[in-house]
Amino acid sequence: MKDGLTMLDAIGPYEVLRNISNAEVLFVAEKKGEITADSKFVHLNAKFGIDEINEADILVIPGSAITFLREINNVKVMEWIKKINQTTLWTTSVCSGSIILASTGLLNGLEATSHWKPMELLKKFGAVPKAERFVEQDKYITAAGVSTGIDMALYLCNKIVGEAKTKAIQLFIEYDPKPIYKSGNYSTAEKNVIEEAEFILLEEAKKEPELFEEIKGEI
Amino acid sequence: MKDGLTMLDAIGPYEVLRNISNAEVLFVAEKKGEITADSKFVHLNAKFGIDEINEADILVIPGSAITFLREINNVKVMEWIKKINQTTLWTTSVCSGSIILASTGLLNGLEATSHWKPMELLKKFGAVPKAERFVEQDKYITAAGVSTGIDMALYLCNKIVGEAKTKAIQLFIEYDPKPIYKSGNYSTAEKNVIEEAEFILLEEAKKEPELFEEIKGEI
Repeated sequence: MKDGLTMLDAIGPYEVLRNISNAEVLFVAEKKGEITADSKFVHLNAKFGIDEINEADILVIPGSAITFLREINNVKVMEWIKKINQTTLWTTSVCSGSIILASTGLLNGLEATSHWKPMELLKKFGAVPKAERFVEQDKYITAAGVSTGIDMALYLCNKIVGEAKTKAIQLFIEYDPKPIYKSGNYSTAEKNVIEEAEFILLEEAKKEPELFEEIKGEI
Repeated sequence: MKDGLTMLDAIGPYEVLRNISNAEVLFVAEKKGEITADSKFVHLNAKFGIDEINEADILVIPGSAITFLREINNVKVMEWIKKINQTTLWTTSVCSGSIILASTGLLNGLEATSHWKPMELLKKFGAVPKAERFVEQDKYITAAGVSTGIDMALYLCNKIVGEAKTKAIQLFIEYDPKPIYKSGNYSTAEKNVIEEAEFILLEEAKKEPELFEEIKGEI
């Protein structure tokens, strides 16, 4: 995690996986301490820095509105991900977290998904983009945008603790989703809705003026 | 918000509402500073204390695994909720947040919902429990457990900014939910699944030993 994090990318999977009996969930940032979300409205206190954590059964890499574009050049973070990956049973990502994961080279030749907006960037790092809610390849599970981490985590949970306990966690968090619209899927979204969503991203991007200057031709 | 918060109760609605153009979202705690979630695994930094905030267009009251049972006796918090409510267009809650809201007396005679577990407690404060995903009464919208805040916030968003922008936010967070099981609804859940979910709550409750001692006969 780092400043610029999309909160639900992290909190969705957390709220599922933390309910596995005896699970221990650590929020790890490049440097421990306060992490400000992409919106600038909410702040996490990360209790662990990457220097302190050397292993994990499950790694979840959340994404961000645009600051992941910085992380894909962050060698220190890349090296840490590769180190932790050697210890994991599952290495996962949500949203643009898959671009960060791909930048390590670990998804080379594998299918992966991401938020619909940066999806094509996966190719730059040798991964094969696939527009699905989540994609499993060996021990890698990449999820699409933001809220998809909840579905991905339930899927993963099912592999770990089985059907009864997974259903219980789903009931505990009352995940019986009934959105008023069916508008969460890029492949079937209306053109004007996509344009509005692109506008939201643009507004988000402007919250990072320096980075925005660098990349505004590309988004 | 306060220690014991269920993170997704707050982050679900936040991730929807913060994407409304020009929205300003504040995380307000009884005392500003670090807030530890019910799981003890994640920590928010609340930048505002209730003494500093005197108005809001929308109030969202998140719940907690069990510490809401303390808040329903917290006169200072009750008085603040009533004060803010005088300024709101919408006063909302997620999960056991509705029990806190009801404890102020504001839901007296109104229908409301909550997480399935503490639902009956609404009656103690004069509200009429209704097992729905969310319940709207006048300007009050109460949502059921944890993840339901996302659906509630999209519904509210639609009232504020209309269909196209709401659909765009849904697309931006890729909320096209496809859980592997249909197990999030208490009224249709299997008996063994409910028992497992009750067990999860019991484990949660034990993380608050003092409070657990007080209430263990009731949960």
